[in-house]
Amino acid sequence: MADLSTCPPLTRASVVEAHRIVAPHVHRTPVVTNRTLSELASRPRAAEELRGTRWEGRTPAAPRMRLWFKCENMQRVGAFKVRGAFHAVERLMREEGWLEGGGRDKGVVTHSSGNHAQALALAARENGIKARIVMPDISIPQKIAATKGYGAEVVFSGSTSPEREAAAARVIAETGARLVPPYDHPDIMLGQGTMGLELQEQVEELLAAESKENGHGSKQEATTTKKKPKTGLDAIITPCGGGGMLSGVALSCEGTGIRVFGSEPMFQGADDGKRGYESGQRVASVSTLTVADGLRTPVGEHPFSVIHGRRLVSGMFSVTEEEILAAMRLVLERCKMVVEPSACVPLAAALFDEEFRALVEREGGEEGWELGIVLSGGNVGVDALGRMFGEAK
Amino acid sequence: MADLSTCPPLTRASVVEAHRIVAPHVHRTPVVTNRTLSELASRPRAAEELRGTRWEGRTPAAPRMRLWFKCENMQRVGAFKVRGAFHAVERLMREEGWLEGGGRDKGVVTHSSGNHAQALALAARENGIKARIVMPDISIPQKIAATKGYGAEVVFSGSTSPEREAAAARVIAETGARLVPPYDHPDIMLGQGTMGLELQEQVEELLAAESKENGHGSKQEATTTKKKPKTGLDAIITPCGGGGMLSGVALSCEGTGIRVFGSEPMFQGADDGKRGYESGQRVASVSTLTVADGLRTPVGEHPFSVIHGRRLVSGMFSVTEEEILAAMRLVLERCKMVVEPSACVPLAAALFDEEFRALVEREGGEEGWELGIVLSGGNVGVDALGRMFGEAK
Repeated sequence: MADLSTCPPLTRASVVEAHRIVAPHVHRTPVVTNRTLSELASRPRAAEELRGTRWEGRTPAAPRMRLWFKCENMQRVGAFKVRGAFHAVERLMREEGWLEGGGRDKGVVTHSSGNHAQALALAARENGIKARIVMPDISIPQKIAATKGYGAEVVFSGSTSPEREAAAARVIAETGARLVPPYDHPDIMLGQGTMGLELQEQVEELLAAESKENGHGSKQEATTTKKKPKTGLDAIITPCGGGGMLSGVALSCEGTGIRVFGSEPMFQGADDGKRGYESGQRVASVSTLTVADGLRTPVGEHPFSVIHGRRLVSGMFSVTEEEILAAMRLVLERCKMVVEPSACVPLAAALFDEEFRALVEREGGEEGWELGIVLSGGNVGVDALGRMFGEAK
Repeated sequence: MADLSTCPPLTRASVVEAHRIVAPHVHRTPVVTNRTLSELASRPRAAEELRGTRWEGRTPAAPRMRLWFKCENMQRVGAFKVRGAFHAVERLMREEGWLEGGGRDKGVVTHSSGNHAQALALAARENGIKARIVMPDISIPQKIAATKGYGAEVVFSGSTSPEREAAAARVIAETGARLVPPYDHPDIMLGQGTMGLELQEQVEELLAAESKENGHGSKQEATTTKKKPKTGLDAIITPCGGGGMLSGVALSCEGTGIRVFGSEPMFQGADDGKRGYESGQRVASVSTLTVADGLRTPVGEHPFSVIHGRRLVSGMFSVTEEEILAAMRLVLERCKMVVEPSACVPLAAALFDEEFRALVEREGGEEGWELGIVLSGGNVGVDALGRMFGEAK
């Protein structure tokens, strides 16, 4: 990882610069809308549906929203994580003396068994840099094989955080490798934020095309009383694990008027981001087995400084395991897209969280919101799908 | 259904005309390629992999192919069937006297519990036409609800073919409704064939864009000895159930030099199309419970006349249940797209059928083939996915 003192400031301009750096290496993933899901999100839930939930007895909110999905499940290695990984590696290569000092051979290292591991392995390989990935020795064989498949060396460790960190520290001591953490670093945050820029631009393009099709802006239209069509997003809601992506997207929206929200699972305290956001005190440790396995980590210090410290995030919301799976079912069955559970948390909030829905009703009013929803990744095997949905009727 | 005597001739020009008619009502679904799957298809299988299969002991073929997927799983109602349904309904509305004779109220009827039922319901509703769908009374509640959701009236019958046909005949006698069969009619074939036109055009566009990116056609290039890049598809392979789509796609390729192949499950004799094609005698009845539930029907007379009679299809191939599920797993996990089992039969043939692969090796040679693969639909619930893959390791 590039030295902290050399990092660009955490601003929208730095996200724009990061996009220039990573764009040649990552897909500009599609943005799609879906009429069925937008209508579902815009229909007040029946009082009946709220029975037995934390919203029982409450008057269902009546928000209006059109959902715009940023399909990072179609990204390289199947998740947004390549944005941060490529940005980190490219920045490292620009660091004075790193390449000359044998950086490529010393390489990079991380401890992760998830999408970040594969993303870093890919970014390193494409730049001819050695990558070592510390993984718990109990990792499933497919994940180990996939990481090796990207050319990385897998270093096994125990499965607790201290054991993994110690293994990474040993690698660093022995090889001179640089640590590339999954989220708690400005370069990672700025890299992930590039997705927010694309989402803003793509929705603007799609709305402009729609407006053209509908003949808005023609003379005839100018004389009617129809409300002015939207030209861009009103808000974006993303998943929040370590907060690298949420904080990066928040930076990408700074000064645009687009509001940014985070969403988490609530299972076994996985809503650490929400608790920290509301108390003002970052929660530094979490232990949860939520189905949204990409969101089991606590929010990092650097992300928290953007999310809470600078108030660039307007609110945090949390959903149940059942709501996550219900949202996932809808994406699979209605959008015909494969997404992992973590990716479905923001949609679950938009569909089921009465706090969030009341906020959209209150602030979006009659016109409603154009709401960006980050589908963060699609790495879920069919076996896992079978386990998640196999027993359901 | 429009009277047979009024049907356009079965030619490519008629498919072009059908496309003009249905294009405003259906999605121009995306065409995507996938490097991982193309590489997998272009790698000879290990002798080991062939052990215990019908190819045991054979030298594995070494074909080269790039796969271009036509994503009809992203089509309206989740399957290509809307193309034929809209074409049939539009043609009916153009039939002399039908509208004037109260056609809209008399309506249309079909017996189907699959994608055709929902497609016809949608096409009828958008044209203000009454639709009645005969479904077995043992149909699963979701299918009944979905069909009603498109505004159709569901008429229940017994589950055998004669019972369903009798129920449809009663509806026709009582209401004057017109039957819109799922595949055995020229209007349906021409409608489904519109997908073939789009696939041809879209691959040409994508190849032209690629060639431009690579700087082909520049002066410098002209002096090198590099082989000329392809400008379009070499072949298309589609699923074959009743043969409406296969025959339509074959018509869309007539005179273009693009070869067309059909593919079927072989389970419990579901390979009726292949058997009929090879014997010259259409197989009129099939009883199979293949997982590819859209392909359980025998090839119809009209499609057979195009597929075999006019030799517009160059070959038929059949695959096992395990091969279908293996292909489905790859599409879900690698392409991040939800597809139904029937949609995966052509990919299974390209990946696993040594007869087909040897043909591609022989005819495609060193250059290989640009191969269009029809992903025909995506209507599979997560519960079914769970059942299909839940027990696998």
